Amino acid sequence: MNPSFVSLDWGTSSLRATLVSTEGGIIEARSAAGGVMSVKDRQFEASLNAICRDWIDQFGCPIVASGMIGSRQGWVEAPYLDCPATPAAAAGAFTTLSISNKVDMHIIPGLRCGSGASMYDVMRGEETQIWGADVEPDTLCVLPGTHSKWAFVGEQSRITRFATYMTGELYGLLTRHGILGRLMEFGGSDSEAFARGATLGLNHSSQATHVLFAARTAGLMGEEQPAALPDYLSGILIGLEVASAMAGETVNGKQPIVLIGDDDLCARYEAALQLAGLQSVRARDGATVQGHVRVAREAGIVVCEPV
Amino acid sequence: MNPSFVSLDWGTSSLRATLVSTEGGIIEARSAAGGVMSVKDRQFEASLNAICRDWIDQFGCPIVASGMIGSRQGWVEAPYLDCPATPAAAAGAFTTLSISNKVDMHIIPGLRCGSGASMYDVMRGEETQIWGADVEPDTLCVLPGTHSKWAFVGEQSRITRFATYMTGELYGLLTRHGILGRLMEFGGSDSEAFARGATLGLNHSSQATHVLFAARTAGLMGEEQPAALPDYLSGILIGLEVASAMAGETVNGKQPIVLIGDDDLCARYEAALQLAGLQSVRARDGATVQGHVRVAREAGIVVCEPV
Repeated sequence: MNPSFVSLDWGTSSLRATLVSTEGGIIEARSAAGGVMSVKDRQFEASLNAICRDWIDQFGCPIVASGMIGSRQGWVEAPYLDCPATPAAAAGAFTTLSISNKVDMHIIPGLRCGSGASMYDVMRGEETQIWGADVEPDTLCVLPGTHSKWAFVGEQSRITRFATYMTGELYGLLTRHGILGRLMEFGGSDSEAFARGATLGLNHSSQATHVLFAARTAGLMGEEQPAALPDYLSGILIGLEVASAMAGETVNGKQPIVLIGDDDLCARYEAALQLAGLQSVRARDGATVQGHVRVAREAGIVVCEPV
Repeated sequence: MNPSFVSLDWGTSSLRATLVSTEGGIIEARSAAGGVMSVKDRQFEASLNAICRDWIDQFGCPIVASGMIGSRQGWVEAPYLDCPATPAAAAGAFTTLSISNKVDMHIIPGLRCGSGASMYDVMRGEETQIWGADVEPDTLCVLPGTHSKWAFVGEQSRITRFATYMTGELYGLLTRHGILGRLMEFGGSDSEAFARGATLGLNHSSQATHVLFAARTAGLMGEEQPAALPDYLSGILIGLEVASAMAGETVNGKQPIVLIGDDDLCARYEAALQLAGLQSVRARDGATVQGHVRVAREAGIVVCEPV
């Protein structure tokens, strides 16, 4: 397989580099802990060299990157592209850096949209995963995470609008730094406690900052055991998210929702969606690299040109 | 004035002792940083002695205490009293400790109720403030704080039901440990940004974990300045709380809502309630000590008995 480009998935907490063939296949994949937040003194080029300098030197491959590397805290701020947005539009809106005067690094723009709640919403990296998942027209994609995204995808992978839910971040803050964590024992897994929490969240999405307190009172009253409380809280938060999304957006249920992301998180969302009466399927693996392939092709990046 | 008892307001982060006269007046008031969370190795008696040993020795005064001192993390766990609950019922449900075989310390029970959201709710200390505020029958009391309380008070100060909102804790977690704090400059005050945030929260209470993200996007898009973002987020959270409480409880608006607590916080709630079309008034100062006086009288504690 001949190399075509280096796919760079550079997020807040991790960095993944993949050497992609001209056929869009994976020649080699590497990962490092060098997420944007762990790069000291803006030494982004050193992190890049550490993970794939050999590919650059040997093949002269251009780089296609997505994620927080294009944020204000990243290497260079790549302006947002407004929704509706297609892979072709993203390919036409690259922010490009020259690496050691040898190869170009193209940063895929993040997306911006006006949300139903009179506010802007933004994503960086998830647009590429959605494009790589290659879903049917008129599909709702859900990408669980620190900041979960619910995105509507129209014809030709056009992302028409999306909304962010701070579910993962709230879970982390409440368990690690908050009073709810004090009654909890971590390390176990309790799908029934998750379902009880999810049911509570689904039924009370207009009472979010109140029902979160149930993760304390259920512990105080002995209704949930300490080892069950983390999943109970996770259920409340994901239930709130699902109910909020259902209230705020048209979830028509004709097309199953496509879940994109980490297996454990997707399983939680699958369970919560099921409790809400919504069908879901998992996206194929490797959506990020496939999204890079798709945008790279739209940009006419086909083959490396050895220097 | 002859001393009657020592009022002890012993919360999570502070300890206040007040020597109360037989007429219910304040003879002397003291405070210390020795909140429940800062007491090491359960040395509660040492903290008590440090703040008012002289009163115990000189007057043999009994002590009436409320707050987190009666929680599982406190000196001794005082069982919850179920709602509806009156000062007389609380006086009949003291948890009493003997201090150095000299005087009794009576801990006022916290309250428990079933909430509308199929969960228990609890308070410790706020019940005493409500009783001390001595409000008209059929009044809704709001006590802003780390865990804000909305409590309905019927005839004879009977607390019929209440609900907790984790507003203050969420504000602290999101600004101190979360991504929202990264774009913020602290120290200023911006009542207009607060009102914009409150309006957003009031209008989208079923989208709580989504609209919180506006405190990031409004900063990213330059819609709110860094120094305005703390108040913008505070507005969103308080707006969400007010709208949630209005959706979940009967806020009939005939009687003005009584705000009990810290001046700055009460001013924020006053503004958010006004945006929601609700009238509010502030409770008189010193509600906690007056609540202790009320419960002490119900318990027949009238005068100290020097030893």
